[in-house]
Amino acid sequence: MSQPHIVECVPNFSEGRDSSIIDSLVRSIEAVPQVAVLHRTSDADHNRSVITFAGRGEAVLEAAVRVAAEAVARIDLTRHQGAHPRVGAIDVLPFVPLDTTPMEVCVDLAHRAGHRIASEVGLPVYFYEAAALQPSRIRLEQVRRGQFEGLRDEVLVNEERQPDLGGPALHPTAGAVIIGARRFLIAFNINLQSDDLALAKDIARQIRESSGGFPAVKALGLALPTRGLVQVSMNLTDFDRTSLFAVFDAVSRLAAERGVGVVESELIGLLPRRALEQSAAQFLKLPDFSADRIIESRLDAVLRAE
Amino acid sequence: MSQPHIVECVPNFSEGRDSSIIDSLVRSIEAVPQVAVLHRTSDADHNRSVITFAGRGEAVLEAAVRVAAEAVARIDLTRHQGAHPRVGAIDVLPFVPLDTTPMEVCVDLAHRAGHRIASEVGLPVYFYEAAALQPSRIRLEQVRRGQFEGLRDEVLVNEERQPDLGGPALHPTAGAVIIGARRFLIAFNINLQSDDLALAKDIARQIRESSGGFPAVKALGLALPTRGLVQVSMNLTDFDRTSLFAVFDAVSRLAAERGVGVVESELIGLLPRRALEQSAAQFLKLPDFSADRIIESRLDAVLRAE
Repeated sequence: MSQPHIVECVPNFSEGRDSSIIDSLVRSIEAVPQVAVLHRTSDADHNRSVITFAGRGEAVLEAAVRVAAEAVARIDLTRHQGAHPRVGAIDVLPFVPLDTTPMEVCVDLAHRAGHRIASEVGLPVYFYEAAALQPSRIRLEQVRRGQFEGLRDEVLVNEERQPDLGGPALHPTAGAVIIGARRFLIAFNINLQSDDLALAKDIARQIRESSGGFPAVKALGLALPTRGLVQVSMNLTDFDRTSLFAVFDAVSRLAAERGVGVVESELIGLLPRRALEQSAAQFLKLPDFSADRIIESRLDAVLRAE
Repeated sequence: MSQPHIVECVPNFSEGRDSSIIDSLVRSIEAVPQVAVLHRTSDADHNRSVITFAGRGEAVLEAAVRVAAEAVARIDLTRHQGAHPRVGAIDVLPFVPLDTTPMEVCVDLAHRAGHRIASEVGLPVYFYEAAALQPSRIRLEQVRRGQFEGLRDEVLVNEERQPDLGGPALHPTAGAVIIGARRFLIAFNINLQSDDLALAKDIARQIRESSGGFPAVKALGLALPTRGLVQVSMNLTDFDRTSLFAVFDAVSRLAAERGVGVVESELIGLLPRRALEQSAAQFLKLPDFSADRIIESRLDAVLRAE
């Protein structure tokens, strides 16, 4: 018996105000065994909700198809207004590897979800990021250009913008869904014992990829005026390339060089277990550490193989 | 559905030479579903084997009873000689909490295993450490005093040495088993870029409990002559009291004060996941971190609840 692949799915829906609709979306996911809804958040101004769920790959695929059908039935984009750009009732549907799941598994799940949603739900599909079928569709913003109202018209005259599946026209009320596979994004902030915003901005500049710092790191320096502190606020978009250990070590050294200490860190939302274990092994200088040195990792295969 | 408790069991057997007997012990454990044999080691001089297995508490209990029966059937202490002290064919049977399992669960498993082994297998039982019923039996060495040959005679005349269950006499060929519940012991070494043994011994003295250092830490300074390094070799007997982070941080600071760096660390055997996660959170200065911030921890309950 092989261990099942564990996958996270983070669909974004174009409804952030009517809680009865959002509840029905959550219920359609929770109806699938072996899937857990981990988080939900709605923004009235954006008029958008994000539901985070996870479980075995096959169960997550089933829940994704069901919630897409529920979104198409319940959300009408022709009457939707909100601050956040969108092309679909279920706007974005990314599959994210957890545990030791390879990215290829999530690409495969994304493609299978796309075929089922196009054929069973009748919703046109675009593929993005690791699941993209065309290089021009890797970036989500590129696929979403023009939004529902613009893309709905453009696909009728421009073949290059037509959906990967279920086109050429968009769904009249539900638009299209953009399905992808991407890495887990860790949101991590470090608070410094200083009120010097220039210091935080300077450290952020030194560590972020865009100004020559660590790969797969985005960083900003922010003030926390009510606490009298400054913060280096980061997104780690690929913790296998740059770990929590690496950025914490770098930020605390750069701050220490100016005589400033780290007060504490903040983790926004959840994080994958491997990101934490990896950083512990790096800090403890355990070479060649792997999860099979962890008792519970060895057991997972046994305990899940029911 | 509540999450099942995950438990490790590390029985010691008075047979380290005849691999057919050791294989049969392993097989009797592996015959129980939901139990995984993680490790086995035999020492011919000690004439002793240690088998490490783990799984759900109820399954581990069942495997412990079965392997006790197999040991009684296959091992004859009246013909056993070895360097390691022992009172039983299955000599020691500790239950160790993993994951978030409370110690009380292991105490309960130890007591239930004891009752079943005494009644079903006919092997007298002593309880030690957290499962001890008498203060004088907390320490294993105290219970084992006199070994099989001495204790066999003493129980006939001294009520105070008689088994907690299944006595007063020991089993004629299998002696008695000493069953307990104890914490996980982490064996962790830190190698220093120095050949100064006095330095390693001095650091070991500063961090070990017996000379006023960290609680639940045993430490020795050793030379690694073939590598030209010295080592601080440690046992952490309660990582909730003193973590890997705490000892690594202390040893590297004490070494740095003398201008000596850490080359790398070594983990002997396996370690519980929580020990690693705890140290990562301490290093990253994440206050109030708990395992429910880890996605896979949230999922375990769902994935195991079949």
